Order: sequence, then C-alpha cells, then structure tokens
Amino acid sequence: MEKYSAVIEARLAKIWDWMASEGIALVMLEDNEARRDQNIRWLSGHPCDALLFLSLDRKAVLAAWDINLAKLCASHSPAALLPYKDYDCQPRKAMAAVTQKLGIPAGSKIEIPSVTPYPVFLDYVGDFTNYDIICRGKGASSELGKMRAVKDHEELSIFGEAILITNELIELLEKNVRSGKIKTEADAAMFIDIEARRRGCEGTGFETLAAGPQRSFAIHAFPNWTNAPFGGQGLSILDFGVKYKGYCTDVTLTFARDLNPKQEKMVNLVEKASGLAISMANNGTPAKDIAAAVDAFFAKSKKKMPHGLGHGIGLQAHEFPLVRSASDNEWVLEPGMIFTIEPGLYDPLLGGCRLEHDILMTETGAKVTTTSRIIRL
Amino acid sequence: MEKYSAVIEARLAKIWDWMASEGIALVMLEDNEARRDQNIRWLSGHPCDALLFLSLDRKAVLAAWDINLAKLCASHSPAALLPYKDYDCQPRKAMAAVTQKLGIPAGSKIEIPSVTPYPVFLDYVGDFTNYDIICRGKGASSELGKMRAVKDHEELSIFGEAILITNELIELLEKNVRSGKIKTEADAAMFIDIEARRRGCEGTGFETLAAGPQRSFAIHAFPNWTNAPFGGQGLSILDFGVKYKGYCTDVTLTFARDLNPKQEKMVNLVEKASGLAISMANNGTPAKDIAAAVDAFFAKSKKKMPHGLGHGIGLQAHEFPLVRSASDNEWVLEPGMIFTIEPGLYDPLLGGCRLEHDILMTETGAKVTTTSRIIRL
Repeated sequence: MEKYSAVIEARLAKIWDWMASEGIALVMLEDNEARRDQNIRWLSGHPCDALLFLSLDRKAVLAAWDINLAKLCASHSPAALLPYKDYDCQPRKAMAAVTQKLGIPAGSKIEIPSVTPYPVFLDYVGDFTNYDIICRGKGASSELGKMRAVKDHEELSIFGEAILITNELIELLEKNVRSGKIKTEADAAMFIDIEARRRGCEGTGFETLAAGPQRSFAIHAFPNWTNAPFGGQGLSILDFGVKYKGYCTDVTLTFARDLNPKQEKMVNLVEKASGLAISMANNGTPAKDIAAAVDAFFAKSKKKMPHGLGHGIGLQAHEFPLVRSASDNEWVLEPGMIFTIEPGLYDPLLGGCRLEHDILMTETGAKVTTTSRIIRL
Repeated sequence: MEKYSAVIEARLAKIWDWMASEGIALVMLEDNEARRDQNIRWLSGHPCDALLFLSLDRKAVLAAWDINLAKLCASHSPAALLPYKDYDCQPRKAMAAVTQKLGIPAGSKIEIPSVTPYPVFLDYVGDFTNYDIICRGKGASSELGKMRAVKDHEELSIFGEAILITNELIELLEKNVRSGKIKTEADAAMFIDIEARRRGCEGTGFETLAAGPQRSFAIHAFPNWTNAPFGGQGLSILDFGVKYKGYCTDVTLTFARDLNPKQEKMVNLVEKASGLAISMANNGTPAKDIAAAVDAFFAKSKKKMPHGLGHGIGLQAHEFPLVRSASDNEWVLEPGMIFTIEPGLYDPLLGGCRLEHDILMTETGAKVTTTSRIIRL
C-alpha cells in the first residue's frame, strides 16, 4: 500500500519540478465525458469525472463528481478531496474556490488543459482577470504525455499481468475458432469481454473489433462487431485488448481460411512488414524511420497502408510514442516504452489483414511481449 | 432508399439556410477519436472519423478516413467523397484543399467546431490568413444540437424500434434475475450486449452500468461492471441502453431485495420523484422547472440527488434538451423531443437507487415509452 503512495508521489514530483522550471503557479487537469484525461488517474488513482489541481508549492486538490468513489480510488494520493457537485460541476467555479483555498498569488500563471475549446478558454480569461491563463499545445498536458510514454516500475509490473491475460486469450481464441465454438463476430467479442473480466480486468482496452470476411476490408469495421460469420473463407480480423488496473493492451489477429493467391500475397506482405518493423525497433531508433521503412516495403509491391504503423499504449489505448512516418514525428525509442507495431492491408474485394504486437523496449532492446499471429485455419 | 436521401437533404437544407442567415461561407465539422461529433452522421450517414464541409452555395464534401466505409454509409448523401488519408488525415490540409475545390471566396467566414482546442484554433488562424476563422459556443455546432433536439420522422421511426427492443430486454432481464439465470453484474451486462446485437442493434447505447448491492452507492459504478453478485440483498442498479441504427435508448432499473426501512424509504422517494417529474412534463414546460421540483421534493426528506434529472437522447446517449435545474438551462419541452427522467439517491452504506424512463413529447403531451421499474425480488 505504502509503495503505491510512493509511486504517486514520484509522479507528482516530476510534474511539480516541471512547474517550478516553468514558473506555473497552478495546473488544472480535467476529465469529463467529452474530454477524457487519464493524467488524473496517473497522478491520483481516481479514474474519471474530476478536476485535479496542482500548485507550485506542491499541493494537490481533487474535485470529484463522485466523492464516494474518490475516497476509495484516490486513497493513496496526497490530494485533498473536494465535492465537485458543491460547485455545480462547473470547472471555473471549482477553480475559483481552489485558487482561494491554496492562496494562489494574483498575477501568477494558471495552466488549463491544452484541449480546452477556444470559446471556453475565453470564458476562463474573462473570469480570472487576476491571473495569467495559459492554454498551449506544448505545456503541462504534453509534458505529462511524454512522462507517461516511459513507464515506471509499477506500470511495467501491471503490464506484465495484462500481457499474460492477453496472451492467454489469444490461445483460447485460436482454439475456439478452430473448434467452431466461435462462429460469429459476436461470439469472439463476447468471449473476450467475459473472459477478460473473469481474469480481473476492468474490461476491454477498447471496443473489440471483430470483422469477418465480408467486413474486414474496413480498417475499423463499423459496427465494431455484429452477428456476421467469423473465421470463414477469406480474411477475418480480430483487434482487441484488455484493460487491467487501468492499463490497455492492444493486439490484432488475422484468421485466414482458403485464401486465393492475391489474399495469400497480402498476408505474406503483412507478416514480412511486421518482422521488418520489429527487427528495426532498437533503443535510439527514431520511430518514424521504422514506419517509413514499412511504407517503402509495401510500396515496392504497389500497396499502401491506410493507417499509422503503431502507437504507445498505457492508461489510454492510444498514447505516446507515435510510431508513424509523418515528418514531424520526433519520437525516438527508449527503455520503458510500450507500443504497438501493426501493419495492415485492406481491399474492398479481398478483405483485410492486420497483425499487431505489443513491443516493450528494455535496456537490452525490443521485446515482443504478445503472441499475436496470422492464424491459418 | 430515396426517402432516406430526402431526409438527409432536409437536414442539410436547415443548416444551409442557417449559414445563409449568418453569412458563413463554409462550415467544417470534425469527428475524430478525441472529439466525436454525431452531426456528421446526422447530415451524411457516415458514422465516424471524418470531416464534413458544407458551403454556402449548398455543396457538401465528406473527407473520410475509411473511404470504403464512406462509400457504403454515405451513399444517400449528396456529399462528394474525399480520401482523408490523401491529406495525411490532417484537418487543415484537407480544409485547404476543400476551400480551393469549392472556390470559397477570400475574406469570407469559415466556421470550425466549437470544441476546437485553443492552440489548434490558433493554428487555423495562422494557416488561413485569407479567411475569417470563426470558433464560437453559439454557432453551427450549437445550432445543429438544437435541430437534433427535435427528432424528425425518420428518427422517431427508428426510436420506435429501439424502444421496442429496450422494453423486450427489460422483460427478459427481470425474468432472468428472478430465475437466477443472471447472478452477477457480468451476467447482466453480457446478456444485454449479446441480446441487443441479436436484435439488430449496433451495440449498447453506452457501456452498461451494472452495480450490485456492494457497488450501487456510486452514481456510475467503476468499473462499469465486474463479476460481483447482482440482485442479492439490498439495491442493485442496472443502467443500459441499446444503439439501433445509431440511436441510443437509456434506461435504469433498480433491483431491490429484502430492504431495510431506510432503503425502503429511498426507493419510495425515487419512485415518487419519477412520477412527479413525468406528471409535470408537458409541451411548453421549462425543463428546469421539472428538475427543480424534484430537487425540492427530495430536499423535503433531507435528501440530495447528486446528478441532473435527465437529458435528451438520440445519436448521442447525452444530448439536448438538458433536464436539469441549473438557472441557465433554458430548454422548454416541445413535440419531437426525447429525453430521460432519471431520479436517483445514493448512500455509501445503503447503496443506490435510480429509476430512468425515456419520455417522448408528442403533440398531445408526454409519452412514457419505456417500461423501466423498481423490481422487488
């Protein structure tokens, strides 16, 4: 128990140090239905629907919509609890109270989330004329995103457990599709949902994407899954993850049955692209170089991947580092990062194929943590 | 088929008329992972991950991430399709192309979504110096929200089907909890998920909240559901909805077993509050008056409801009209509105109780469409 408090303190210390270097008197983070922010969970343990205030003199206040839940979830956090409802769940009202409570000096800098809508930003500026309201792309939110891209000990330990569950599900999914127990997209999605929670997960990492041969042409099938057949002739895609103690895994399997030569070629290209990308994943390697190599590899066969090669995973299913070829992607791989490598090809007639692994960078190089594969039926 | 095209045209006509009255040359709507916008689906049929551009001369362009999906889903829309990937899925790149393609005159007004983060707004202003970039709370997004608060014929017809499925599930849930087939939160959640899709739904309206007696004290239990027992001694809450052709229902049942007098009192108050609110729901009634009456009713028993009384439902699980007592809530009930009435009380020791109905306003008054209830076991 004490250990987790120390973990939370260490995370808070990092952002407080950063605030000191930037001269920010107060940082406000917000998680609401329209704009989720996992930084609050990372810094307090409280999962959702709250504001978190951090002051330069190293104090924290958590204004939570559900104060009973906050008492349970944020018990290892040094944050003082404030019932958000007492301020009608209005962030500016709560912020006015907190600036008073913490004695934030007039004229000092208060940073609000980078995702604050422009009209809402104007409301803050109008309400807090005594302060310098800051809202910027490269500020506290981006700093926290960078911190979270490299996982700490606690996180790596949770991930270890999440990956074990994920790999166990992969084995069971292959077995059950082969045996015919899983016949439809719904069978696959429900199996994952129930078996993940049976193993102590909060749920799935995101809504499972199960797309049988008729629907796998779409990058993300819509709806995510239906009662359509799964695992029949052609290509079926299963993209899923678990959420364990808040942390998401993210893998994709492709089930292939009785492929025609064009489909076979697609599958081979995707498998080779996966191997190529993983072989390039080393500490110090720019992530965009790996993504560009895969783009070039596909281009040789006149194929084009309609999505990025990968992304970090953690409290969010999509987080830093970015693993894509955009020229402004400056992420470089380093120990403690966990990210996906997920090459895929899609065709309206042939269907789609994607293979997605979760990679952990260690001091000694990349470790493929997942047992994802193309499953030939 | 043609009918649905006419529905889409009628919706577009409304927003084009509004644009003319405001002198806006181009409206851009955006749906991405971080900021969902169901207005795009409402105006085109395409469900997600896209930009929709509407011009004053009544043209539409849909830039979709998954162009194969767009060809299927937006086939009844007059919108020209643009592969978003050709612009690296960067909204400003796509917008630059569209302003050219549609010949938007220099100096004219372009409105971007009201939820655009302030730093991103600055990027638009920096990129489009030839145009007057507008981002405001009371603009296109809010106008579309108002339009969608009153459902059209097509929507009412879809809702009718969604409600039938929801009520069928309510019957089955009661039966299965009574028979002991549903014993855990997971049993209840999985039952809803699978049975909704079996009846043609895209999925659930939102992640089902199933909270047994140990967890029902939380307004929204976290995690949403677990393997904990459901329906045992005390109060169990089941808050769920289906998503049918995009449209969400939203109901809450409370299962009550062997209550103590304090729990019994809570349940009675919630049932009475529901009846009171429904009796007040008439065309022309301000929604805040109903919510205030319920607050006052609870206050007489020294109870306080820690959430709003209700909200509109539609393509989103939470939309307009607002049904809450905040003094700035100016929504007035009118025919075609569909909204929830969901009084609830929560106590860390006694558990929680909520009863949620979906109400349709018709020309002749409020119709309670759902068969939600407190189920005494």
